[in-house]
Amino acid sequence: MFITDEFLLQSPTALKLYHDYAKHLPIIDYHNHLPPKDIAENKIFGNISQVWLNGDHYKWRAMRACGVNEKFITGDASDDQKFIKWAEIVPYTMRNPLYHWTHLELQRYFDEHRLLNAETAQSIFETTREKLNSPEYSTQNLLQKMHVEVICTTDDPTDNLISHAKLAMSNEQLALSSSKLTAYSSKLKMLPSFRPDKFIFIDAPNFLIHIEKLANITSQEIKTFDDLLSALKTRANFFASMGCKLSDHGLEHLYAEDFTDGAANIVFQKALTKNNLTDKEILVFKSAILFHLGEMYHTLGWTQQFHLGALRNTNKRMLQTLGADTGWDSIGDFKQAASLSKFLNALEEKDKLTKTIIYNLNPTDNEIFATMVGNFNDGSEGSKVQWGSAWWFLDQKDGMTKQINALSNMGMLSQFVGMLTDSRSFLSFPRHEYFRRLLCNLFGEDVKNGELPNDIEWLGKLTQDICYYNAKKYFNF
Amino acid sequence: MFITDEFLLQSPTALKLYHDYAKHLPIIDYHNHLPPKDIAENKIFGNISQVWLNGDHYKWRAMRACGVNEKFITGDASDDQKFIKWAEIVPYTMRNPLYHWTHLELQRYFDEHRLLNAETAQSIFETTREKLNSPEYSTQNLLQKMHVEVICTTDDPTDNLISHAKLAMSNEQLALSSSKLTAYSSKLKMLPSFRPDKFIFIDAPNFLIHIEKLANITSQEIKTFDDLLSALKTRANFFASMGCKLSDHGLEHLYAEDFTDGAANIVFQKALTKNNLTDKEILVFKSAILFHLGEMYHTLGWTQQFHLGALRNTNKRMLQTLGADTGWDSIGDFKQAASLSKFLNALEEKDKLTKTIIYNLNPTDNEIFATMVGNFNDGSEGSKVQWGSAWWFLDQKDGMTKQINALSNMGMLSQFVGMLTDSRSFLSFPRHEYFRRLLCNLFGEDVKNGELPNDIEWLGKLTQDICYYNAKKYFNF
Amino acid sequence: MFITDEFLLQSPTALKLYHDYAKHLPIIDYHNHLPPKDIAENKIFGNISQVWLNGDHYKWRAMRACGVNEKFITGDASDDQKFIKWAEIVPYTMRNPLYHWTHLELQRYFDEHRLLNAETAQSIFETTREKLNSPEYSTQNLLQKMHVEVICTTDDPTDNLISHAKLAMSNEQLALSSSKLTAYSSKLKMLPSFRPDKFIFIDAPNFLIHIEKLANITSQEIKTFDDLLSALKTRANFFASMGCKLSDHGLEHLYAEDFTDGAANIVFQKALTKNNLTDKEILVFKSAILFHLGEMYHTLGWTQQFHLGALRNTNKRMLQTLGADTGWDSIGDFKQAASLSKFLNALEEKDKLTKTIIYNLNPTDNEIFATMVGNFNDGSEGSKVQWGSAWWFLDQKDGMTKQINALSNMGMLSQFVGMLTDSRSFLSFPRHEYFRRLLCNLFGEDVKNGELPNDIEWLGKLTQDICYYNAKKYFNF
Repeated sequence: MFITDEFLLQSPTALKLYHDYAKHLPIIDYHNHLPPKDIAENKIFGNISQVWLNGDHYKWRAMRACGVNEKFITGDASDDQKFIKWAEIVPYTMRNPLYHWTHLELQRYFDEHRLLNAETAQSIFETTREKLNSPEYSTQNLLQKMHVEVICTTDDPTDNLISHAKLAMSNEQLALSSSKLTAYSSKLKMLPSFRPDKFIFIDAPNFLIHIEKLANITSQEIKTFDDLLSALKTRANFFASMGCKLSDHGLEHLYAEDFTDGAANIVFQKALTKNNLTDKEILVFKSAILFHLGEMYHTLGWTQQFHLGALRNTNKRMLQTLGADTGWDSIGDFKQAASLSKFLNALEEKDKLTKTIIYNLNPTDNEIFATMVGNFNDGSEGSKVQWGSAWWFLDQKDGMTKQINALSNMGMLSQFVGMLTDSRSFLSFPRHEYFRRLLCNLFGEDVKNGELPNDIEWLGKLTQDICYYNAKKYFNF
Repeated sequence: MFITDEFLLQSPTALKLYHDYAKHLPIIDYHNHLPPKDIAENKIFGNISQVWLNGDHYKWRAMRACGVNEKFITGDASDDQKFIKWAEIVPYTMRNPLYHWTHLELQRYFDEHRLLNAETAQSIFETTREKLNSPEYSTQNLLQKMHVEVICTTDDPTDNLISHAKLAMSNEQLALSSSKLTAYSSKLKMLPSFRPDKFIFIDAPNFLIHIEKLANITSQEIKTFDDLLSALKTRANFFASMGCKLSDHGLEHLYAEDFTDGAANIVFQKALTKNNLTDKEILVFKSAILFHLGEMYHTLGWTQQFHLGALRNTNKRMLQTLGADTGWDSIGDFKQAASLSKFLNALEEKDKLTKTIIYNLNPTDNEIFATMVGNFNDGSEGSKVQWGSAWWFLDQKDGMTKQINALSNMGMLSQFVGMLTDSRSFLSFPRHEYFRRLLCNLFGEDVKNGELPNDIEWLGKLTQDICYYNAKKYFNF
Repeated sequence: MFITDEFLLQSPTALKLYHDYAKHLPIIDYHNHLPPKDIAENKIFGNISQVWLNGDHYKWRAMRACGVNEKFITGDASDDQKFIKWAEIVPYTMRNPLYHWTHLELQRYFDEHRLLNAETAQSIFETTREKLNSPEYSTQNLLQKMHVEVICTTDDPTDNLISHAKLAMSNEQLALSSSKLTAYSSKLKMLPSFRPDKFIFIDAPNFLIHIEKLANITSQEIKTFDDLLSALKTRANFFASMGCKLSDHGLEHLYAEDFTDGAANIVFQKALTKNNLTDKEILVFKSAILFHLGEMYHTLGWTQQFHLGALRNTNKRMLQTLGADTGWDSIGDFKQAASLSKFLNALEEKDKLTKTIIYNLNPTDNEIFATMVGNFNDGSEGSKVQWGSAWWFLDQKDGMTKQINALSNMGMLSQFVGMLTDSRSFLSFPRHEYFRRLLCNLFGEDVKNGELPNDIEWLGKLTQDICYYNAKKYFNF
């Protein structure tokens, strides 16, 4: 049998830590890309391709790398054809995290213990279809199955957050209508996160369209840099009123050029009048708006997140054909340390540095990030600036191990807010299990090797903190 | 005994995979620096220093690092003096790959199982001399011993490829003259590869001399950028007619500046008239010629290779004394991601991206390369852009393991075209064995740890693909 | 029991190597930041906070990361309050090197085998106070306990080295007064090292103050670049007369811009007259002075050290409050390879390259450094240019392992001059034990896995060379 109870747990200590301490904890998934509408409407999926292959660019890349034609990936092949193609490829994904994820997800959601391959494909398609068509497999129930307590979605500042409101209301009504809550959904907190990248990338083709949309939704004129900040503030306040506690940014690196608001405004005026901007001007604008957003997040008491280092949309033809986030992105080698330090310090010097999580995509930056987060603690709480969990291409055993080890060696693992899925898929929550097993195993190996004392209770406490309680406390959920 | 059958194989699965699946496969060495003349003439070496120490800058660096005087390395000491010095140093190379290579090569070629050191030096020099003087140890027979099926040498565009022709002819005659082939040499394919670096480095001192040589051999005037491309095309067509299927480039990083052919021509004119070039001009020229070569390779159906990231000739005094490739090179920290992406995309957008292998010398770029190769698949075949095997300084257990693991985690290991020697030495082919053992061991560890299902047949198939069949198919040998 | 005799030693070979070969060797600590005065005066500390927490920014960072208020770190809390806070934090430092260091140091210096935590804090504070107040725990005796033979402190060129003179004299008198030496202190060599960073950073605020101080102590006018070099030479000669054999530099990266002395003098004149300098001018000056210092070190027969890659003083507010070296530094991502190569080559070409040790702070540069040191050997001795031991943030099991492995794979581990503390603490010398255990374990694992022959005598010799004899020979102590 593949993936047993002992999976990834190579010592008695690891087994005990996972099964007695970590396994049963709820999940706080403080950053992901799940569609709020599907959750609010408690969507039911027709078949496994719909919930598992659609939108999953990890699997798409794997299929392409195995020579599969795009027709069976994002093309007009039928759902079962696509699933069968994927199943054929699965045995070729051995040693890729997809191989583990695939079988862990089949087990945890569908109690399906067979290996997925050409032979089992049709049968697994049928058995999962039957399940997925039942209410037990609605989005909310899929989350419930994994004991998900909180999810933070990623939302555009112009989003009306109607789905968040809807779910919150139905939860409230449920609470009112019944003293004996039976449906887990009543407990699921779905909070929005504020992701204003579009208003930072002044050099992107659609910048003015986004500005116009923002002006419309706020009923404010946006003619100056101050107007822009004010409109974003209006939206952030609205997000806050809807329970938002985090912002998020996806950048190649942080922008920390010296600026004045006046200079930023001049650049903004040029953009509004469609003049070309120099690289320097773009950098000044981006630095200015990022700094002011940082101040705003501090005022709101939010946690700001920065996902740094992706080289996106490398394949222009496929970008035009399929759009962004379809599997044509890569790891970049941008310089990170100086600008990151300068940005955090600029806020710190003004006493405006809010809680911050920084994520690196290139593992070569691990040690830069591991040490950077130690520079801005102020006694207010444990690890005020956090180094985020291994992300995207790094979200696998080696990548997670390296992140945990570097954090351990150069910082305080005990203060870590732990795992998140960052996923677009409703079936990806076993990655929390994966993380927990791996973490327990690292502690277990240390005990086995005499590098940590065999104090199961204390290690159990640290494990539970990292898997759940640190996040709960840090974000104040 | 050192280096047993179990060497590097730490599980029953690993042992089974290596001995039952990998060991007996022929070798496709699709990139090396062997001298074609020595092969065509089936050279016999006088002694082990001739075949093992001459030209091996790995060993030279080790000796220098141990304080050995240059006289015993590249100087006028006798062959046996040099060998004895090397033997004295060998015990000091423990934990360096040279220690493994040394003893593996002594075993596989000479059935010599003693450890090499000061005490055994003289005796081993004698016993190997005897063997090396027999026809059984001719270059072709050394290759045959290792079951080498194909080798791709690395050749200058102005080379007449006479040795390749000679070997091909003698193989044909042998085939004609005998229905029962007994000599292995009749089966050895030696193909040229096209390495036009000299025509790209417009800022190198001898650029104009190379241009002149190219003009002479093609009987074409080379007065414009178009002339240069046309002459290179003439040579590439000739190479293709001689069986060439690969090109190769050794660059610090890829050149992908925006250019027009007109601009490239202006730079070329300046070079022809010996005017100084600006950095920008050099970059424009290099970018232009690389792009056009890429188009040409696509037309020819070749695979293009890029070896990126070496910082060469750091020690100017020794460069003047001994020339290039004598052990004074280093790993650089050039930026790779953006230019690599831009270059590959430029060809892709024009539907001119041919099969491509990229090799990085700095392991810090592993993840950049591992993810970059996933951006340009088009359904035409498995992993059209490949991340090449760990190379030069990285061609050792740690380096190979990291490359295989990063490829596994971020790409499709199953599609990998595998190992090559990249070597100047006729005794370096056990590195394929080294790679195979290591690969089998990685699969074996995963099975042992429950991270892969214990399906020996499937793992055997994947192993055989990576060790032999993928390359055979990818290059169409 | 935590930290047993087997600590870090996971094979019979490792146990044998450590206990029979490495353990009893004296310590040569060729680079640290111990205060010479405390040693010369044989200071006795009042309590463990004085000797263990004061000045230890590793512990400070850990406490801050756990949310401890600065009052208990560098503030006005009492010594026992601070110790108790630290003790409370210790269990939270698991997997950080501090956890190992803490308990190893308590065992080795105080024979204290309990784990440090909130419960044991008060008692351990008392028992260690008693010990620390006895002469047995004076600075010299603390060093003697660890068999320290040589220490090289880090000193300002304007320092009068009075403490070094005092200790040397008292050692001499002791030797004269007694034919039967009983006190170990009589054997402790404390040598100064020359660290002229202040005279290189022409752009730092206090540059002119340092110049004035240098002029005063040398009774020389410093009006030109030549004057500056001459004054530094005067001081270096004085340092040499006091036994100095090493210099040290802490830089972001090496400076190797083309320069003339005339150009450097013009920049220096501008600085003297308080004119603003361009980045280019600063670089020219720094490159010039570094080169001339390198020449000078060669003349003196010293070893020059370069600690490269720190991003210092990231938190400006805390820099102003607490000053430098108080725990607000980070790992940078500066480019290293080209300038390092150019600098070393410039000296080599003039036959002025002295023995050199380069240390990198970002482990991503490991392979750059590992290969760079192989480019400048000249047969004069083993590994003339050395890659220094894992340093600062890297001075832990993973970091040291990676450095040793990269050095093994790309250079000659056998020639390595090994460990140093680089520490400000009198209790940090068990880090040599840590290094030795780890080194022995690496050899042991290789033997266990069949990757090295089981030749305990030879491995014992290599171990002893790396732990002691190589340094003794290289520095000529």
